[in-house]
Amino acid sequence: MIKVTVPATTANIGCGFDSLGCALSMYAVFTFEKSDKFIISGCDAAYQNEDNLVLRSYKKVFEKFKLEVIPVKLHIQSEIPLSRGLGSSAACIVAGIYGANAILDHPLSKEQCLELATFIEGHPDNVAPAIYGNLTASFVSEKVCCTRFQSADIEMLVMIPDFEVSTEKARKILPAQINFKDAIFNLSRVACLCKAFEENDQEMIHEALQDCLHEPYRKNLIDEYDEIKEICKDETAFFISGSGPTLICIPKHEKRIIQNVQSLQHHWTCKLLHIENQGAREEII
Amino acid sequence: MIKVTVPATTANIGCGFDSLGCALSMYAVFTFEKSDKFIISGCDAAYQNEDNLVLRSYKKVFEKFKLEVIPVKLHIQSEIPLSRGLGSSAACIVAGIYGANAILDHPLSKEQCLELATFIEGHPDNVAPAIYGNLTASFVSEKVCCTRFQSADIEMLVMIPDFEVSTEKARKILPAQINFKDAIFNLSRVACLCKAFEENDQEMIHEALQDCLHEPYRKNLIDEYDEIKEICKDETAFFISGSGPTLICIPKHEKRIIQNVQSLQHHWTCKLLHIENQGAREEII
Repeated sequence: MIKVTVPATTANIGCGFDSLGCALSMYAVFTFEKSDKFIISGCDAAYQNEDNLVLRSYKKVFEKFKLEVIPVKLHIQSEIPLSRGLGSSAACIVAGIYGANAILDHPLSKEQCLELATFIEGHPDNVAPAIYGNLTASFVSEKVCCTRFQSADIEMLVMIPDFEVSTEKARKILPAQINFKDAIFNLSRVACLCKAFEENDQEMIHEALQDCLHEPYRKNLIDEYDEIKEICKDETAFFISGSGPTLICIPKHEKRIIQNVQSLQHHWTCKLLHIENQGAREEII
Repeated sequence: MIKVTVPATTANIGCGFDSLGCALSMYAVFTFEKSDKFIISGCDAAYQNEDNLVLRSYKKVFEKFKLEVIPVKLHIQSEIPLSRGLGSSAACIVAGIYGANAILDHPLSKEQCLELATFIEGHPDNVAPAIYGNLTASFVSEKVCCTRFQSADIEMLVMIPDFEVSTEKARKILPAQINFKDAIFNLSRVACLCKAFEENDQEMIHEALQDCLHEPYRKNLIDEYDEIKEICKDETAFFISGSGPTLICIPKHEKRIIQNVQSLQHHWTCKLLHIENQGAREEII
């Protein structure tokens, strides 16, 4: 039986829209056991069918090599909440690819796993850190290009609300045209931010982790965004995780924040995570 | 007598518009000798007056500390061509500040020199590498923020034409509004590019050193841009230095390029430089 563990991921990270991603110490665990037919367990009944993203990604590997699909019993045990901007779909895609790759005795390199995962997901910013761990910057040209940073062990206070935001809606709310100076605002911070993560330079993280390309629009889709931003205003950094609605703070005083956030109208689950420096991993159990 | 040596600098470097800058192995040397009045030599007669940028920057340091200005004999010996996008004005500003700082026994830290130089120049992208050397990314928030990268020793073929482009014209030709996706194109490459310089990853430099924010506009101000781009198409990278008109190639086959460039209509001075890892330095002679 093959066990694949994939970390949660947060994408964008302020200035790094559609580029930066980071693995977090929150995991989804997937087991694959050869079987005579596909059986899925551990997830909501709505996902126990052919449309399951783990399964679809699993099958893509066989498709790529024009091989007959080997059915498996798939069991999912995930801490990563769905549709909250913490890379649950990236985790499913990476798990499916890793499961198939293990069963087929590893025909795919990590780079090829990233290529395929990006093809399925549509963009690399969550799947890259899900595969490599740590902080990544990535873009797609003729191929998927990914840079890995050895980030310091930075704690992140992840605040997950009791509501969803549709990724499609979060994408549509962004303008087609922006001010030139707003583009430069983000661009000039990205390189500084990555180095600041590597060096754990809290002052630079504070300065560089600012955004004016997506958060001014997307905050309108997230109830109590303004209240939480106010609560976090003296902390090192505050940003929307992926397309939201999860909010993340790099805290100085996490206890105070948790207390204040828990007095809001919505229920926000607060978890103090750290940057996971390992990406997806498999073991035979 | 104080001798200040400042390197030439190239800013923007493809995707890093208004952010990245890099020091090059081409220098301007300035000597400051206390005198009873200001005397300037070594530069064109048009610059031997109160408007001289070295002098104006020199005086700013005294102004900052509300001190009476000490006159000097200033001699300039510069390899950096004027108005070509190689940081000649940044070199003058940094030299003036360093000269005054040395005469006043160093009241300013490097960070303060950068603050003052940015205030005089209007932006930090050339003055930062002129001060720190190597590759820098910088931006201005409430203060000037600068990240320094230990770049590998990368060779750059600098091609300097026999004509000028006005920085003001180069600035005005840029649009006020741009496509969101063009902003992301550059943003997603910047962090990857800095790491690629650190690791001398030529393949990533090739992929990441692309731009769609300034070069599509500014190339129209540079005669024979298209011809030189074509000549450099198989090289590692090609970009406009600062606001032009100097063009830079990270070459694989510099001899072939130099030969081809020298057959063009304009005269292009070709120099094979490397990244200078020291910034401005002073010595007592």
